[in-house]
Amino acid sequence: MECLFQMTWPPQSPDLNPIEMVWDELDLGSQGENTAMDNVATERRAEESHRQDSANLLIFIMLLTLTILTIWLFKHRRFRFLHETGLAMIYGLLVGVILRFGVHVPRNMNNVTMNCSVNASPATLLVNVSGRFYEYTLKGEVSTVKGHDVQDDEMLRKVTFDPEVFFNILLPPIIFHAGYSLKRRHFFRNLGSILAYAFMGTVISSFVIGLVMYGCVTLMKAVGQLGGDFFFTDCLFFGAIVSATDPVTVLAIFNELKVDVDLYALMFGESVLNDAVAIVLSSSIGAYQPAGDNSHTFDATAMIKSFGVFLGVFSGSLALGVATGVMTFTKLRDFPLLETALFFLMSWSTFLLAEACEMTGVVAVLFCGMTQAHYTFNNLSPDSQDRTKQLFELLNFLAENFIFSYMGLTLFSFQSHVFNPLFIIGAFIAVFLGRAANIYPLSFLLNLGRKNKIGSNFQHVMMFAGLRGAMTFALSIRDTATYARQMMFSTTLLIVFFTVWVCGGGTTPIYRGCTVMVLQKSHAHIYLFEQVIVSDGTQHRNTKHESAWPFRIWYNFDNTYLKPLLTHSGPPLTATLPACCGPLARCLTSTQAYENEGHQHNDDSDELVLNDGNATMYGDVTVSTDASGTRTTNYKHLSASTMGVTSEEALDQELAFGEHELVIRGTRLVLLEIPVNSTLALNDKALIYKQMP
Amino acid sequence: MECLFQMTWPPQSPDLNPIEMVWDELDLGSQGENTAMDNVATERRAEESHRQDSANLLIFIMLLTLTILTIWLFKHRRFRFLHETGLAMIYGLLVGVILRFGVHVPRNMNNVTMNCSVNASPATLLVNVSGRFYEYTLKGEVSTVKGHDVQDDEMLRKVTFDPEVFFNILLPPIIFHAGYSLKRRHFFRNLGSILAYAFMGTVISSFVIGLVMYGCVTLMKAVGQLGGDFFFTDCLFFGAIVSATDPVTVLAIFNELKVDVDLYALMFGESVLNDAVAIVLSSSIGAYQPAGDNSHTFDATAMIKSFGVFLGVFSGSLALGVATGVMTFTKLRDFPLLETALFFLMSWSTFLLAEACEMTGVVAVLFCGMTQAHYTFNNLSPDSQDRTKQLFELLNFLAENFIFSYMGLTLFSFQSHVFNPLFIIGAFIAVFLGRAANIYPLSFLLNLGRKNKIGSNFQHVMMFAGLRGAMTFALSIRDTATYARQMMFSTTLLIVFFTVWVCGGGTTPIYRGCTVMVLQKSHAHIYLFEQVIVSDGTQHRNTKHESAWPFRIWYNFDNTYLKPLLTHSGPPLTATLPACCGPLARCLTSTQAYENEGHQHNDDSDELVLNDGNATMYGDVTVSTDASGTRTTNYKHLSASTMGVTSEEALDQELAFGEHELVIRGTRLVLLEIPVNSTLALNDKALIYKQMP
Repeated sequence: MECLFQMTWPPQSPDLNPIEMVWDELDLGSQGENTAMDNVATERRAEESHRQDSANLLIFIMLLTLTILTIWLFKHRRFRFLHETGLAMIYGLLVGVILRFGVHVPRNMNNVTMNCSVNASPATLLVNVSGRFYEYTLKGEVSTVKGHDVQDDEMLRKVTFDPEVFFNILLPPIIFHAGYSLKRRHFFRNLGSILAYAFMGTVISSFVIGLVMYGCVTLMKAVGQLGGDFFFTDCLFFGAIVSATDPVTVLAIFNELKVDVDLYALMFGESVLNDAVAIVLSSSIGAYQPAGDNSHTFDATAMIKSFGVFLGVFSGSLALGVATGVMTFTKLRDFPLLETALFFLMSWSTFLLAEACEMTGVVAVLFCGMTQAHYTFNNLSPDSQDRTKQLFELLNFLAENFIFSYMGLTLFSFQSHVFNPLFIIGAFIAVFLGRAANIYPLSFLLNLGRKNKIGSNFQHVMMFAGLRGAMTFALSIRDTATYARQMMFSTTLLIVFFTVWVCGGGTTPIYRGCTVMVLQKSHAHIYLFEQVIVSDGTQHRNTKHESAWPFRIWYNFDNTYLKPLLTHSGPPLTATLPACCGPLARCLTSTQAYENEGHQHNDDSDELVLNDGNATMYGDVTVSTDASGTRTTNYKHLSASTMGVTSEEALDQELAFGEHELVIRGTRLVLLEIPVNSTLALNDKALIYKQMP
Repeated sequence: MECLFQMTWPPQSPDLNPIEMVWDELDLGSQGENTAMDNVATERRAEESHRQDSANLLIFIMLLTLTILTIWLFKHRRFRFLHETGLAMIYGLLVGVILRFGVHVPRNMNNVTMNCSVNASPATLLVNVSGRFYEYTLKGEVSTVKGHDVQDDEMLRKVTFDPEVFFNILLPPIIFHAGYSLKRRHFFRNLGSILAYAFMGTVISSFVIGLVMYGCVTLMKAVGQLGGDFFFTDCLFFGAIVSATDPVTVLAIFNELKVDVDLYALMFGESVLNDAVAIVLSSSIGAYQPAGDNSHTFDATAMIKSFGVFLGVFSGSLALGVATGVMTFTKLRDFPLLETALFFLMSWSTFLLAEACEMTGVVAVLFCGMTQAHYTFNNLSPDSQDRTKQLFELLNFLAENFIFSYMGLTLFSFQSHVFNPLFIIGAFIAVFLGRAANIYPLSFLLNLGRKNKIGSNFQHVMMFAGLRGAMTFALSIRDTATYARQMMFSTTLLIVFFTVWVCGGGTTPIYRGCTVMVLQKSHAHIYLFEQVIVSDGTQHRNTKHESAWPFRIWYNFDNTYLKPLLTHSGPPLTATLPACCGPLARCLTSTQAYENEGHQHNDDSDELVLNDGNATMYGDVTVSTDASGTRTTNYKHLSASTMGVTSEEALDQELAFGEHELVIRGTRLVLLEIPVNSTLALNDKALIYKQMP
């Protein structure tokens, strides 16, 4: 834990002026015999401080509780104009206003001031009091700006978190959950496009925003509006951090809308992956250090080095995440608690391992989540599958709402805001242009190769739904030492607010606004139900035909070799490997895989839509009630004969049986009612039943 | 989060000697132009430190992973000699040895030393570098004992946690889980005895241990073995901390043994509650401050004040826990995620609220858990019931194993151990005597009033199974500033090791050793199955008849008024309140309660046995397979006529229907195989099916 709160506060310039030390009040009585009294006094103060801290943390918990209750109210009343993250921000703002202007906790003034010659503020301080060493860690600068005295802002200072908390505690569960809940079939079908948007798109967007901002900053300098240094690398850094679109908000909004699965996969996949790209990109821009004195000229070697860092860190983190994600534990099935605990620890250790190897933990965790969802998940016992899903869902929910309410809070509690109107206007234009330069040209290029074109309506929605969220915030609050970074942070905050409230709130109307889209939409609905109901699945075949050949090869390789090797769910390796590899195959195949040979399953292939925490549809059992109330149940039974071992269609189709006898476990059907949308083309209530795994 | 890591390190004596400040290396080049270089250097150092911290935390995660894998191996191989907590300690010990003697990470020696006159080590330090204030927090003393240089123990220092982490992060989930999983029916049936053991017993034990230790310390002083002050209050404090028996280990061992439910309830209830008593007792002994200079004489007023503090803090925490536990949220049923999140936040805010009010958070959390299990749990949706149980089970498992492995680690990593053979021997004798003085006299007195006597065999087992665990450790590591506290900590560590390994490992043989006990045991098994199978339940009636009258009154009051008011599960208030209160009753009764009038349920009343994470038996549906393989299913259907509204028996009996139509949800039966014990009297495999709520 220690490390998670270790301060890596921005470096401060050393200065040879004498340092003044302000001590908290101390009883400076005669030595020795007052020891006990002093002990008591210090203990009291420590207790008081702990009490205060608990009270502050309580503010946040109450904020979250309030958010949850309001979310419930909104869901209950079917009020969908504002998303929960937007709500959390509003509550955060309100509390920020109260703390800023309502509460005034003066700092204890009884300080003893001493002078001594030291010249900087290192991260760790060792103080030697008569032979005993005490270690102090830097907590941060106590702001003295705007005429406020140091003593004046105790309360605001107390509610300010170490920015590294976001990176080391709050972001990992969010990103892991995103990876773990990626809709894998549609994700793979659109993998090429997703990678293009996420990699090329983010880089394009960063550079476009960087260039526009550089223009803006040059203008500001000419007008005399710039109060400090703002270099080209700063502009690029800004471009990188505001290019990360938020998967969570997009996911939630699209869930509510029940959009086309391809659009959903594109948006979600892009949002998840571009977070990873943005974080690595911003750190490689930070690593851009030209040789010589002037660190802000262009230098080709440094540029190439930065690019090398980008590639190295990204691929390293990816490899690490995949490697730990692939680690399988198949024999713990009988003990769901152990299994879940191990799963949790493995994910966490991926993060730590990546950080310890100077990779990016968040990126590693993302790929670990994706890999685990693809392989390890199939090895878990049904109980653990539920447990892990629910655990990460909860962690994600809490972390996400915490970040967004903290975002609202910082607008007032942060002490060094630099709001520059020109910069802000420039940034909004730049963000808009950057997003446009990402989506439209890339979509045009991708459409040249895609059979299933990305329509211009889809492009508009993607353009508009590029919300900025937790990652952008975490990246911008990480370093607020210089004038440039402070201005970036303040502007970023406004961009997040604007996109979450305006774009988030406006996505629904925009989506519905296009007449063509409404058509598309009801179409999408029917298409969804088709996918559920139609069991011979012309739809399913698309996976093969719509994907480009590299992914088809990957898909086959994965199903034939990797899945059998890493999970129990595929056909045994003995069946897929050539005869010459027989002994090796036998040694690598678990006994369970043989047992499952008759009725293999592939949990992820048909997980159709939209896990937003309270309505999950699985394609395995569908029950629909027609207008007259007759219930028709449609189990997809598998005839053993149709199951070609390496056939993709079979893998896409089969689902009905889990690895355990349905007879013993029984079928638990949970009644879910899909909120009937006004534009929904289906004219009777659709009841979807979920079969518990 | 901030507060959780706030340092409340023990106070240090101020001293007027000049203070020497040791800075980490700084580039002390010319001012201004080297700023950027320094920034980079500081950033690098911060990164390096973060990398190191991640690596250290990774050690702990790996330790936990290893423990989990070994636990699995033990469970898989049915090896039960060593409990998992004992295992975690052994691994901790091994890593401690490696870190102590194997790894040597020298501290960076390039320090710049400066002198300045300051006289103490306050908790917070403000450093003024040319007008900018930086805040430093005290991290703790860097040990210099035993000739080791400060620079020498970087690695050991890094793996040492702030002791408050245990109180604020690791203990709460453990204690909450204990409260949340208390077997409530048997708990209430033995409430009087449990309270006697927990309150009277712990106080007796503390004083006996304190007196014995005072004798021991006096002897040591006479012999010249004492290296520092050790007052009578210290002895009492030691008595209080080693009187807390560990619920987790006891629970686990008794689960494996499948002991008599009454013995189980007595031991578990006592262990859970005496943790609360011990923590409050130790803090009130700390608050014992006689007037005048000499703080170690006896002072009646201070004594009474301490007693007042004890009562005040205990009842305050209890009230707070119960108050927040009782808060009901009944309309979130449709959104399990929100419900679970709210439940989690409420429990956490109880802890924080108690800490903010200067109460004891751990005690508040315990009673909050018990209250929530009794009331709020019934209002949760079935999905949330599962989720909360599993979540807290996981948190408890991780926290518990972490504490125990850290315990092993500290034996070698802690720098200020004081092992005094005389004190250690004295302590072992004192602990033995204290436990005996708790169990035997109280059992004698209780047996005078109990119908269902506590047999002398039960007493021996209770005597022997009083393991010391997480709470004792957390209390003793909290303050290791003085010689007395250091000696206590080292001795406590040995006591925990001994009790967990020897008593924990020996409980099974001891239990089996008594011939009478074996009889009792197989009896207990049959008794268990009887309870599951026999549905007209003569067993169930015992609750009423065996309890003393205050508890009978409480039981009736609870069932008639509190449960209907606070949950949906009882009869509606309109039926239980007198007619004159009609309007009030209608206003306080939820619509769901009316719906449930026909088939109310009471989840906890029949939760028979033994949730150890992988085998939970519920009494509602039993299916047994006899030797010939025929399966007989035995559903307990309720005839509406037998359900007297206020009748306890009905509440004890009814279970079969949840609040939702069984028809729609179906019945999910999970196959659980109870490990067939060699001494088990049943001669065919007993298969218990669990109906998912």
